[in-house]
Amino acid sequence: MKNALGPLPLSKVEITDPFWARRRELVAQVVVPAMERTLRDEMPGAEKSHAIENFRIAAGDAKGSFYGMVFQDSDVAKFIEAASYTLIYRPDPALDARLDALIDLIARAQQSDGYLDTFYILGEPKDRWTNLMVCHELYCAGHMIEAAVAHFEATGKRTLLAVAQKLADHIVARFLNTDAVPGHQEIEIGLLRLYRATGGRRYLDMAAHFLDVRGKKPNFFEVEARRRAGEGGKPDAVDEDYNQTFAPVREQREARGHAVRCLYMLTAMADAAQATGDETLAAACERLWENIAQRQMYVTGGIGASARREAFLRDFELPNDTAYAETCASVAMAFFAQRMLCLAPDARYADVLELELYNGALSGMQLDGTRFFYVNPLEVVPGVSGALNGFEHAQPLRQKWLTCACCPPNLARLIASLGRYCYGESDDAVYAHLLIGSRASARHADVELESGLPWRGGAALTVTPHTDAPFALCVRVPGYARDVRVCLNGEVLDAPVERGYLRVERRWAADDRLSLEFDLAPRRVYADPRVRADAGRVALAYGPLVYCLEGVDNPGPLSALRLPREAEIRLGGENAALGVTTLQAAGKRLRAGAALYGGDAPCEEDATLIAIPYYAWSNRGENAMTVWIRE
Amino acid sequence: MKNALGPLPLSKVEITDPFWARRRELVAQVVVPAMERTLRDEMPGAEKSHAIENFRIAAGDAKGSFYGMVFQDSDVAKFIEAASYTLIYRPDPALDARLDALIDLIARAQQSDGYLDTFYILGEPKDRWTNLMVCHELYCAGHMIEAAVAHFEATGKRTLLAVAQKLADHIVARFLNTDAVPGHQEIEIGLLRLYRATGGRRYLDMAAHFLDVRGKKPNFFEVEARRRAGEGGKPDAVDEDYNQTFAPVREQREARGHAVRCLYMLTAMADAAQATGDETLAAACERLWENIAQRQMYVTGGIGASARREAFLRDFELPNDTAYAETCASVAMAFFAQRMLCLAPDARYADVLELELYNGALSGMQLDGTRFFYVNPLEVVPGVSGALNGFEHAQPLRQKWLTCACCPPNLARLIASLGRYCYGESDDAVYAHLLIGSRASARHADVELESGLPWRGGAALTVTPHTDAPFALCVRVPGYARDVRVCLNGEVLDAPVERGYLRVERRWAADDRLSLEFDLAPRRVYADPRVRADAGRVALAYGPLVYCLEGVDNPGPLSALRLPREAEIRLGGENAALGVTTLQAAGKRLRAGAALYGGDAPCEEDATLIAIPYYAWSNRGENAMTVWIRE
Repeated sequence: MKNALGPLPLSKVEITDPFWARRRELVAQVVVPAMERTLRDEMPGAEKSHAIENFRIAAGDAKGSFYGMVFQDSDVAKFIEAASYTLIYRPDPALDARLDALIDLIARAQQSDGYLDTFYILGEPKDRWTNLMVCHELYCAGHMIEAAVAHFEATGKRTLLAVAQKLADHIVARFLNTDAVPGHQEIEIGLLRLYRATGGRRYLDMAAHFLDVRGKKPNFFEVEARRRAGEGGKPDAVDEDYNQTFAPVREQREARGHAVRCLYMLTAMADAAQATGDETLAAACERLWENIAQRQMYVTGGIGASARREAFLRDFELPNDTAYAETCASVAMAFFAQRMLCLAPDARYADVLELELYNGALSGMQLDGTRFFYVNPLEVVPGVSGALNGFEHAQPLRQKWLTCACCPPNLARLIASLGRYCYGESDDAVYAHLLIGSRASARHADVELESGLPWRGGAALTVTPHTDAPFALCVRVPGYARDVRVCLNGEVLDAPVERGYLRVERRWAADDRLSLEFDLAPRRVYADPRVRADAGRVALAYGPLVYCLEGVDNPGPLSALRLPREAEIRLGGENAALGVTTLQAAGKRLRAGAALYGGDAPCEEDATLIAIPYYAWSNRGENAMTVWIRE
Repeated sequence: MKNALGPLPLSKVEITDPFWARRRELVAQVVVPAMERTLRDEMPGAEKSHAIENFRIAAGDAKGSFYGMVFQDSDVAKFIEAASYTLIYRPDPALDARLDALIDLIARAQQSDGYLDTFYILGEPKDRWTNLMVCHELYCAGHMIEAAVAHFEATGKRTLLAVAQKLADHIVARFLNTDAVPGHQEIEIGLLRLYRATGGRRYLDMAAHFLDVRGKKPNFFEVEARRRAGEGGKPDAVDEDYNQTFAPVREQREARGHAVRCLYMLTAMADAAQATGDETLAAACERLWENIAQRQMYVTGGIGASARREAFLRDFELPNDTAYAETCASVAMAFFAQRMLCLAPDARYADVLELELYNGALSGMQLDGTRFFYVNPLEVVPGVSGALNGFEHAQPLRQKWLTCACCPPNLARLIASLGRYCYGESDDAVYAHLLIGSRASARHADVELESGLPWRGGAALTVTPHTDAPFALCVRVPGYARDVRVCLNGEVLDAPVERGYLRVERRWAADDRLSLEFDLAPRRVYADPRVRADAGRVALAYGPLVYCLEGVDNPGPLSALRLPREAEIRLGGENAALGVTTLQAAGKRLRAGAALYGGDAPCEEDATLIAIPYYAWSNRGENAMTVWIRE
């Protein structure tokens, strides 16, 4: 691809940004240890996991039978992946050693032919690969491969990588010449990472093949279901939207079905398009990106509006109080955005990547790292959310690790591998996608980025070139930056902005300093009026952060509040307990009348509206919350 | 009770009002014949009913087994009730004869001990009365008794009344000295009607007993379920909210659970309170009335916001697009209002009665009488309503007769017995609750009421007294009447208005004419801001009619429309196809922007808003609809 970028290896990017460094410490010190204790069934009060025990039984170290979800193995893989990333920025020899032991266990659980899935190893080995639609073997394999690549990148050790290659080779041998379609996309991502880590072309071929066969007729899952049901049996129903088999991937015009599956598929599609130069695949990615980002995404970055089947709902149908907006889907959208940035740098992708990082994904984690949201509604009403029929999923408080433990490790691996999302490099340029304080070592240069975000505007990049040849430094200028002034070594510079990136091309000298001075001001955000839930409403934002109102700051029902168009939105000072800058505005509150219905418009009284960042909601007990405010 | 009123016998009230006469003709000529053909399985395209066939098998006239819902018998009863009412205003000797034959069939199906329920007669007779929670025997009995009283009132024949008395006597003998609680309230209404028709005190006692035992501990349904499950069996779960057994009826502070069950219970409670003079029962009725009317009722009169279990949701939680608002619940609210008016005349009750008649209930029927809504949403969005998960019930088009055929006959019997709702009389007064054109013969006087409603203001009552003694004529003055001028025989009269009723007490002379001159003007209605779905929104009304916008009159998404506070609402002329007067106003429409989210408020363009009465929605094909408009 003409504009293709590579990301920098994770070991080449150090995150110095205070906002993110704190969260990365939480992941290393709170989240990953909690994950490990949970997987080892040593976490007081947590639901039984049994995930590591399943491997112990498979390896012959213990007696027992399989317990857990059909994808329980993936919990172990995601833990290894996240833990490996933390070893890069927070070395921990004891954790390193425990990972070695765990990997040894996994290697011993692996079957001689490379097969690795404890659900079938402990259950009915003869039934393996007979229910791809439901049984998640390829999904677990994909995560195990991702874990292996992460562990290899973090430690240089090939122990889990060897397991992953044996597993991947088994999969290639089993599936490359079949019509088999993975039930929950993920193996494609793993195979592509394995291809990039090892150069094994067969892994790329297998990933591309899995993408190519999806959506072909006859539907593989129907064939598989009939085969499983046997003569006279009743085959399981296939929801072609749910698993994205309603059309071949290149012909899909809108994102449908299970959001995480769809986004994992798109992540792999973008990655494969870059690896193979397949323009038709890239065009499909672009079309579905636009469908999601311009028709099916919440203002917070939330993806997948429907709790039923954790799915996309319909263009512009984005209910706030029943939003599903799974944390995993926001994490997956960040994956997709990162791959799209590799295909062709464009601030459209980086804007969404940033939106997910600071909002839709980050909202998933309690400020202290101990609890998690799977579901991220944009409106919470006490007594309704989490309580009434249709609102059961919209819990007002984060939960401890749950039986279906997808979101916490997904968020942990995203945050722990944040360096992967910050930069890209091509033959002639270094790209800074995110203004997150960091030190990066690219081929052309070392770059140190200082940033005031998210609380203050401005960023500066100090360059230490590795070459005398000219190259471009391309820095994304966020859409919310006001009065941007670009200086090079203190001199104002007039440089072009291309697809949202300031591009400064020159022969760089050591300690050249490129600064972007800009202001952050609280701002209003409006939705397309086709989003009926948001018509006549406004959301507040500041820098990369979307804000919300919480009941604890704003008494009375939040639906009674209004933010007049002309009201100034001010910085409201710091909320020390949350560690955030609040926004304030002079608003109005409708007063309850005497009767349920009446001819007189309800009176309005003055009300100071206080907003906090969306990611920080629900850290002060159960209370009301809304992102969209009547205007 | 001090202020108790009796309604006038149905035969004493003739409806002359053009608006209602037309609908009563539809009921007689379209709805009742369709019901009869359906129950006889002679309706082309209709689902199999088998309701009359069940009786034929039970009577030995045919062979076969029971088919239908457990309450299939009630379809027959409700048909007889509605058909009997039509005989009063539209004599039909052939229908009369067919009813006689049907009643003869029912009498022959009745068991020698009085028991009558074809589900058990054709099924497991030994299991009768063992599952009151679910199996609807008492519900069916209540409807059969109501049908008998209606048939007796309409024809003077005691044929079905004898069946009803035998059945009721069986029930009294079986249940008066037990803790048994009816599963779906209705028998209480029937017994009270039978008491009033026959004077049999035992029927009142049985009704009062059924009300008294409900909600007592231990919960009868749990006892019954354990008994049914037997030793070691798993008893059925009991939802105490659903069937209003969460507290004794006098201690219930809010309406909960299945809306129709609750309202049938309240109807009987108000009726029993009047019959017995039980002030505690009356107080409970009043408390629950206020809870419903002031916290849980849609502006259309819709009752029961939740599709799940067809239930009340929660105070002020009145979602428009997922509203259940069953037609039967609005009909039942009219029943309750009528009984409350008998307890103590107060325009609060008559206002809601009128609201239900012209809106919440009437919306249930297509303008041509051929199709029916069970569910009456206040917002319909094409592609969402009736389509997406959580919206399946909110169908955008009325249906033909359905398997669960509760609503059409319920609406038919309400409209066919409209005369019962118009007047009341006490020892010293005649009350006109509704300004519906009619001729009534009360004890004190004959009254002829002419009215311009619903399309024009003003009403006049011509009195022909039957007595020289003074008595009061009390006429409800609707809250929406503007510039009311009262004249007696052409002279302006200054008379008191008590609890919403103009009270004129005098010695009346023949042809005395009391007129209320008033204007109707289109008006705005606002909801208490605690109703979050309606905050910042306005509804339109004209006289007794609530209006709505339909997509066919208002292009683009209705959520994009706004009705500014200052915009004048004008009469928009007649829509001949619908036979209604429309409303018009100069509104605004948000224009779709380029991006899903942006910092610029969407532009507004001018848009003429055209509103039609809510009852007339969905008569021009599937399209969008909304009652509440952004202001």
